[in-house]
Amino acid sequence: APKLFLLAGPCVLETEAHAHKLGEAIARITSDLGIPYVFKASYDKANRTSIRSFRGPGLAEGCRILAGVGKALGVPVVTDVHDAEQAKAASDALGDVEAILQIPAFLCRQTDLLMAAAQTGRAINIKKGQFVAPWDMKHAVQKVVDSGNTRVSLTERGASFGYSNLVVDMRSLPQMREYAPVIFDGTHSVQTPSANNGTSGGQPEFIPVLARAAVAAGVDGLFLEVHDNPAEAKSDGANALHLNHLKPLLEKLLAIHEAAR
Amino acid sequence: APKLFLLAGPCVLETEAHAHKLGEAIARITSDLGIPYVFKASYDKANRTSIRSFRGPGLAEGCRILAGVGKALGVPVVTDVHDAEQAKAASDALGDVEAILQIPAFLCRQTDLLMAAAQTGRAINIKKGQFVAPWDMKHAVQKVVDSGNTRVSLTERGASFGYSNLVVDMRSLPQMREYAPVIFDGTHSVQTPSANNGTSGGQPEFIPVLARAAVAAGVDGLFLEVHDNPAEAKSDGANALHLNHLKPLLEKLLAIHEAAR
Amino acid sequence: APKLFLLAGPCVLETEAHAHKLGEAIARITSDLGIPYVFKASYDKANRTSIRSFRGPGLAEGCRILAGVGKALGVPVVTDVHDAEQAKAASDALGDVEAILQIPAFLCRQTDLLMAAAQTGRAINIKKGQFVAPWDMKHAVQKVVDSGNTRVSLTERGASFGYSNLVVDMRSLPQMREYAPVIFDGTHSVQTPSANNGTSGGQPEFIPVLARAAVAAGVDGLFLEVHDNPAEAKSDGANALHLNHLKPLLEKLLAIHEAAR
Amino acid sequence: APKLFLLAGPCVLETEAHAHKLGEAIARITSDLGIPYVFKASYDKANRTSIRSFRGPGLAEGCRILAGVGKALGVPVVTDVHDAEQAKAASDALGDVEAILQIPAFLCRQTDLLMAAAQTGRAINIKKGQFVAPWDMKHAVQKVVDSGNTRVSLTERGASFGYSNLVVDMRSLPQMREYAPVIFDGTHSVQTPSANNGTSGGQPEFIPVLARAAVAAGVDGLFLEVHDNPAEAKSDGANALHLNHLKPLLEKLLAIHEAAR
Repeated sequence: APKLFLLAGPCVLETEAHAHKLGEAIARITSDLGIPYVFKASYDKANRTSIRSFRGPGLAEGCRILAGVGKALGVPVVTDVHDAEQAKAASDALGDVEAILQIPAFLCRQTDLLMAAAQTGRAINIKKGQFVAPWDMKHAVQKVVDSGNTRVSLTERGASFGYSNLVVDMRSLPQMREYAPVIFDGTHSVQTPSANNGTSGGQPEFIPVLARAAVAAGVDGLFLEVHDNPAEAKSDGANALHLNHLKPLLEKLLAIHEAAR
Repeated sequence: APKLFLLAGPCVLETEAHAHKLGEAIARITSDLGIPYVFKASYDKANRTSIRSFRGPGLAEGCRILAGVGKALGVPVVTDVHDAEQAKAASDALGDVEAILQIPAFLCRQTDLLMAAAQTGRAINIKKGQFVAPWDMKHAVQKVVDSGNTRVSLTERGASFGYSNLVVDMRSLPQMREYAPVIFDGTHSVQTPSANNGTSGGQPEFIPVLARAAVAAGVDGLFLEVHDNPAEAKSDGANALHLNHLKPLLEKLLAIHEAAR
Repeated sequence: APKLFLLAGPCVLETEAHAHKLGEAIARITSDLGIPYVFKASYDKANRTSIRSFRGPGLAEGCRILAGVGKALGVPVVTDVHDAEQAKAASDALGDVEAILQIPAFLCRQTDLLMAAAQTGRAINIKKGQFVAPWDMKHAVQKVVDSGNTRVSLTERGASFGYSNLVVDMRSLPQMREYAPVIFDGTHSVQTPSANNGTSGGQPEFIPVLARAAVAAGVDGLFLEVHDNPAEAKSDGANALHLNHLKPLLEKLLAIHEAAR
Repeated sequence: APKLFLLAGPCVLETEAHAHKLGEAIARITSDLGIPYVFKASYDKANRTSIRSFRGPGLAEGCRILAGVGKALGVPVVTDVHDAEQAKAASDALGDVEAILQIPAFLCRQTDLLMAAAQTGRAINIKKGQFVAPWDMKHAVQKVVDSGNTRVSLTERGASFGYSNLVVDMRSLPQMREYAPVIFDGTHSVQTPSANNGTSGGQPEFIPVLARAAVAAGVDGLFLEVHDNPAEAKSDGANALHLNHLKPLLEKLLAIHEAAR
């Protein structure tokens, strides 16, 4: 059975030093466990609840930091792109570092963004919209394939379930694997959208439960936002996994993955 | 009590002649009924299910047609914008015609788009995301206001209710009216997202029911996609209201609006 | 157009004097407005959140009080029945007073209860389960009809929408009217099930909004739990309508009903 | 770690011979795997969609068959009870066979039923209503405990997710384990309520996926309706697990349970 891979890192790039430090810490763990690792961080949080929230260093500076982390660790990186022009610009700025361009969940039906990202030739990871049925993600995959790029994965991150709550329907994992490799995002699946008076809250206590369930149901990879100090994280700290909890969680998930084959 | 206003027209601009013909037909009806009218059409359907679906004439040609219809009818126009750059470009292209820039539901949390649209000084209509609680739309309004523009309205178009179905929660109407004038979109509220094998289906038989209910609950305006031949419409024909049904529906809605004051 | 009728009264029978007093107050209002009135009260709240909550006077004493109120006011009464044996016993205890037997929402699929209630020959009002699609209520109606009783109505009281919240899908009203007359329950539709730490909460501020919407969408009757002192009500005070608000609400609803014909 | 236990058998008792044959086949498998086994079958399907559907042999004959199977196999049995009187009658009829009384999901808030079942002194298994938040099941547990019986378990079987669909929220498993041991029902979780024109349909292809996920998330036991010929089953054949698939599934689940400890 192929190995589970891991996309992990801070929600947003905070400082260059922090990105390197956190990336190194995660890479040490994944290297110990033999897990292929992709460093994840956003250069811009484009849909924060408030106009005044921290958004990150921006595309140019962010891609420079990402490329630096990727080179230093010798791992690919993954980052969000938000419109067609950004997809091209981010890909160019990332240069010769291996990188995955990620389509945010709210934007998973934006044709121009999917096409432009696909046309960079980079691998594309599409997050499933909270408002999309699993079987409709085949259309998103098809938009990428029709643009000449077959390196595409899908990520489950929960479906709208009433207001300010998401539910992970484990049936979506095998359904979407009919179209592409599937990643489970343990971080955003425990988000409670804007339930917290202007910033989204979270239930990080359920990250291990959902990740264990998803791995047993069957996925190809995992996505986790990890922070060494969630309480001080500049974005989405409410649902980040503490760095100290990463290794034991991954060990458990590898054991389940092995048992569930 | 202020009058109900109406945003109506084809889903997408098909031909210039068709836009004028349909706009004139609707304007005649609204003029008879004393309803303030805004001509609605999209120049680009940016999130069609398939890459091969008809998308429209594009920004430049589309805004030229929209401006022409607005001038010919002497009414404002409303059209979707999909990223920050488009907001500015569309506003420029619309020139001296009075126009509302509309933020699509999937994009209602994209900060840059909201700010750029706001900064044109045009009136802004934000559709509520299918994944957003009504009380969270105050944050979208705030992003526009914080960008120096207080002419903002919100539109209800249904919330995710399981897969491939939307439900209109009538409680959302008074809730959102605490933040801005509220429009009820009777067309997209009866959409059944991608339930129809690659194109979204619809239940146009419920447009009058939901519109009557929304007007009785209390709204400021209505949004309806209208077509003289829904079966041949180039986009979203499955949930368009037939032009022949518009006048009797509006008459009923005006009576309910009057009764519900 | 036929008149809207009203089922209204306290959630649970508190004291005999209170039932008479409240029933008289409501009957005076409905008589002024020409609305056919049915006195509503439960003799037993069979699914309270806690075993220690007040449940009511029980079947025998409750039906005696109900019959007394019905006779005093000259109106029919309506009350819940919870199992097959109770249906027969309650019907017998109500004697020659005209009465509707009501099937609670959680029990709307219990075949024996529906059949036993039907076999009393009384009119039957079935509340739609929070977990049932509108089109599936035809099966509940059919169970009554197949038991030899065609006097059956259906009541909309909201559908599960995530946890601890209900949403009223106005499409359900015309859908269910294909099978039977439809009543809108403005009280339980604004319940927030057990959101309040062991007793269900409510949003009575939305009763008028939802009732206006439902009447405009089209219903045959209304169901409202009314109390002269909701804060002291022995059950469901959190979503009861204050008696003082009943007359202005009904006046508005009659106007909308007339306009929406 | 304690062993996973299994409640399994046909949805409804069809014939005495069939019950024995199926029970023996399952007991052989669980005995091979060292899994504690409880024979499951209903004597009456009390909420079939249609009045004309097969309901089973009834309480007296059904409990006689159940007791016979329990004795022949030397295992406990579990069966549904639908009202307070039935709880007592079924318990009496089951005699000295060890038995669990099960509260159906729709009835999980019926106080009298919970109390009467509790007062038999039998172990009680309460299915979580499709309309109930996991944290509200503590009130159902409390009703049993307050009736003097602490042998109570809870079963997850999916939550309403739009119409005619259920979703299993894996967060509910650890949440409910705070109150009682938790069983995962892999059969009813894949039900599509009445989506199939008058009989509920199902997605048995998802039973293994959801069962694997639930075991990895953490449960105490499993509930599975098993049939040697699902196409001919007299109830719920659409979501039954074929007997041939039981052993390989249980082997996988045991491995995951071991890995997830």
